[in-house]
Amino acid sequence: MANSSRIFTAALVVIGDEILSGRTHDKNIAQVAAWLQVQGIRLKEVRVVADDTPAIIEAVNILRARNDYLFTTGGIGPTHDDITVDAIAQALGVPVIVHPEARAILEDYYTTRGGLTEARLRMARTPQGASLIPNRYTGAPGIRAGNVFIMAGVPSITAGMLEALTGTLEGGAPLLCETIGCWVGESEVADLLRETEKAHESCQIGSYPFWGEGRTGANFVIRSIDREHLAACTRALVEGLGALGREAVPGGI
Amino acid sequence: MANSSRIFTAALVVIGDEILSGRTHDKNIAQVAAWLQVQGIRLKEVRVVADDTPAIIEAVNILRARNDYLFTTGGIGPTHDDITVDAIAQALGVPVIVHPEARAILEDYYTTRGGLTEARLRMARTPQGASLIPNRYTGAPGIRAGNVFIMAGVPSITAGMLEALTGTLEGGAPLLCETIGCWVGESEVADLLRETEKAHESCQIGSYPFWGEGRTGANFVIRSIDREHLAACTRALVEGLGALGREAVPGGI
Repeated sequence: MANSSRIFTAALVVIGDEILSGRTHDKNIAQVAAWLQVQGIRLKEVRVVADDTPAIIEAVNILRARNDYLFTTGGIGPTHDDITVDAIAQALGVPVIVHPEARAILEDYYTTRGGLTEARLRMARTPQGASLIPNRYTGAPGIRAGNVFIMAGVPSITAGMLEALTGTLEGGAPLLCETIGCWVGESEVADLLRETEKAHESCQIGSYPFWGEGRTGANFVIRSIDREHLAACTRALVEGLGALGREAVPGGI
Repeated sequence: MANSSRIFTAALVVIGDEILSGRTHDKNIAQVAAWLQVQGIRLKEVRVVADDTPAIIEAVNILRARNDYLFTTGGIGPTHDDITVDAIAQALGVPVIVHPEARAILEDYYTTRGGLTEARLRMARTPQGASLIPNRYTGAPGIRAGNVFIMAGVPSITAGMLEALTGTLEGGAPLLCETIGCWVGESEVADLLRETEKAHESCQIGSYPFWGEGRTGANFVIRSIDREHLAACTRALVEGLGALGREAVPGGI
């Protein structure tokens, strides 16, 4: 579904008190970000908000208007603290309904697991007009409402939902990248990095320092949507490091 | 510095293309969140934005106005892609200066490391009127400008800066929490959770399901700023689970 003529963008809203309290380490930002790269969609912004209706509405309405796609994770379970569906329906200005297809999926899933209780039926609720994102792990589906994709908070379930969406969204040319590592203090090559980037206009160079084994190093990530420009910029940087007596490690350290 | 009469809030802006591309897994959200809990400061919102001046300015200006404290991580190194200080100075409407104390720290640090080059001197630049946050790892300090705390992106350096700030910020009563684990599907106890929370007004109960060893479980986190209410709510939930024939595991599973 690649469309090289324009850039497609997305935002992510991570919903959950447990992330903001530090109790749970978020894993969805990294996995959604990496997945979007492969789809040729640029992740522009992430917000983490509490299980709080006005906070969810604000983030969803600003970010869905600004981007081609908006993803959310968290708050779609069966318990009282799961308010994402209601908040997003309010943001979209539509009522919440019990989605017949979701209800059927849950009835089937819970046949051998004690039946579909009122609490479990909460997971069949969607904004009116929504379609479903399959979840082969626990039955309860994710939800697509317009350009908003409502996904689970549990990372393994989110992964399954992303898998179900793979290849279904229109994206542009993916941003390509090359990584070079080098045992050098980034401050020693700041001029080289700036000048190499300037000489290769469609390319950006990011510099990510680290410390280890008593030494200072950095990885340099060159990004471009053009494969040839990317290769030329990477070559120039490797040569520039070489001219300073530094060896570049392809793929990074 | 506890002030029990009001709630203190903070926001965090994580700055960096490398997080949005999925290349780097953020570790600062969790560590800043956990640190704020201990300071009695509530983390209300996190935004992850690109190395992009307008995006940084927008996030900083909205969030510093809404909260007692705003923290940022990332983009304060010596290379061309480190634009955080310039963007925040612009957000605050002040010029960027070379901070004399920061310059002295860096001169000292680089005496035995090849001297203070122009690139390294970039790390002494601050918004005018700022004070410094010590960094005992690499010399380059963090920056406090008004209620904005500008910190490193490398998690171990951020940790050192947080350590230097520990106990220096006014906070309120810390939010206390208790965790109970139980091998039960959360949908089976949704009513119990809702009713227990309702019966204990100053308490919130969060439900965090998981799957493991072929079984379904959940951790329930009870939060309150009142120690006695917290204990009473926790007891009620343990008894409620017991009445359903389920054993609560103190501290969680």
